[in-house]
Amino acid sequence: MRIGILGTGMVGQALAAKLAEGGYEVVVGTRDPAATLARDEPDGYGNPPFRVWHQQHPDVKLGSFADAAAHSELVVNATAGAASVDALRLAGEANLDGKVLVDIANALDFSRGMPPSLLVTNTDSLGEQIQRALPAVRVVKALNTMNALLMANPRQLADGDHTVFVCGDDPQAKALVTRLLTEGFGWRDVIDLGDLTAARATEMVLPIWLRLMGALQTPMFNLKVVR
Amino acid sequence: MRIGILGTGMVGQALAAKLAEGGYEVVVGTRDPAATLARDEPDGYGNPPFRVWHQQHPDVKLGSFADAAAHSELVVNATAGAASVDALRLAGEANLDGKVLVDIANALDFSRGMPPSLLVTNTDSLGEQIQRALPAVRVVKALNTMNALLMANPRQLADGDHTVFVCGDDPQAKALVTRLLTEGFGWRDVIDLGDLTAARATEMVLPIWLRLMGALQTPMFNLKVVR
Repeated sequence: MRIGILGTGMVGQALAAKLAEGGYEVVVGTRDPAATLARDEPDGYGNPPFRVWHQQHPDVKLGSFADAAAHSELVVNATAGAASVDALRLAGEANLDGKVLVDIANALDFSRGMPPSLLVTNTDSLGEQIQRALPAVRVVKALNTMNALLMANPRQLADGDHTVFVCGDDPQAKALVTRLLTEGFGWRDVIDLGDLTAARATEMVLPIWLRLMGALQTPMFNLKVVR
Repeated sequence: MRIGILGTGMVGQALAAKLAEGGYEVVVGTRDPAATLARDEPDGYGNPPFRVWHQQHPDVKLGSFADAAAHSELVVNATAGAASVDALRLAGEANLDGKVLVDIANALDFSRGMPPSLLVTNTDSLGEQIQRALPAVRVVKALNTMNALLMANPRQLADGDHTVFVCGDDPQAKALVTRLLTEGFGWRDVIDLGDLTAARATEMVLPIWLRLMGALQTPMFNLKVVR
């Protein structure tokens, strides 16, 4: 399967590396590929520039948002939540038409200090905003409730004995994403929360995730639904 | 320890029963005790009227909100979130002065249909609203992220191998509540999320709790923070 990943940050890198390793054809999309490759400084979290990562992963192609979308059968939105709708418009409605979009983003609001609050919450969600902006895309919200390293490698923690959520309006799209989660990444516990309005619920997990990272002093944790 | 529980619903009943069984002196508080005892119909969830439960738990006293607050060293807010600030005002600032208040409530908004959304979210919380309304009370938010039966009897599920959160501005109050959780109820994993602004995070767990109840078709589940 050909996969396009929008976003060159830690999330995009972690997913692209794992998928390329698993034999998927991966194109990572960015606003301006030349600028992304020219960047020489670490990002805001101290991670090395994309160029360094890319040298270590030459099998992953870099292109524009539109390149990544056009190339792929399945697209992953790994851009910053506040910029996601813009990035998807640049990817192009025609390039995304009818495709499955896995929305991993969280719309964090850093304007009120740390920890960030959410830009959209309670009676709406980023996942629904994206679905409204691009009605022909089959949005599945998933993977937005844990650290990037665990998204792609859940077995790194407790041999994968923890939970990932999916939701969306298209059952076939959810089934495809669920297969990607289990077969592509190794997730053992995938819970389908229903239609895309459940993205409100999974996006509202972020505040407790952020508090837990503060309390535990590590991002290497995840929620398990014990039942 | 003398404990006052505000609220005669499922949450109040579950906690009162467990605490009375453990030898605590418990007074359950309600707006109008005579009306509560006179009620003859099941509640909105089909549970028997309070009177029936009370006959089975004669060691638990029933009184007004003010009686329950005046009686106690520690007060539990188990009223409906939308009515909590009113109930606490009826309990009386003087009766609550300097006491520890465990706020278990969730401010659910049923006006937009099911599942309910939240009345307060993101940059504020019910816990903080209560703390602002009653500055002399030492508010600890806890136990609002699972079913009433699990709150009081966590060992009923996976021998207690799941998580409860506490937060609040007063470290001694949090230590007292943590002891109540572990020694009174049997919780094994209590995570301190920091000051009372973390109540935003634990209250925002409710939407995913509600979706999970829909997906799993049972309220007998809980989150475990795997780390």
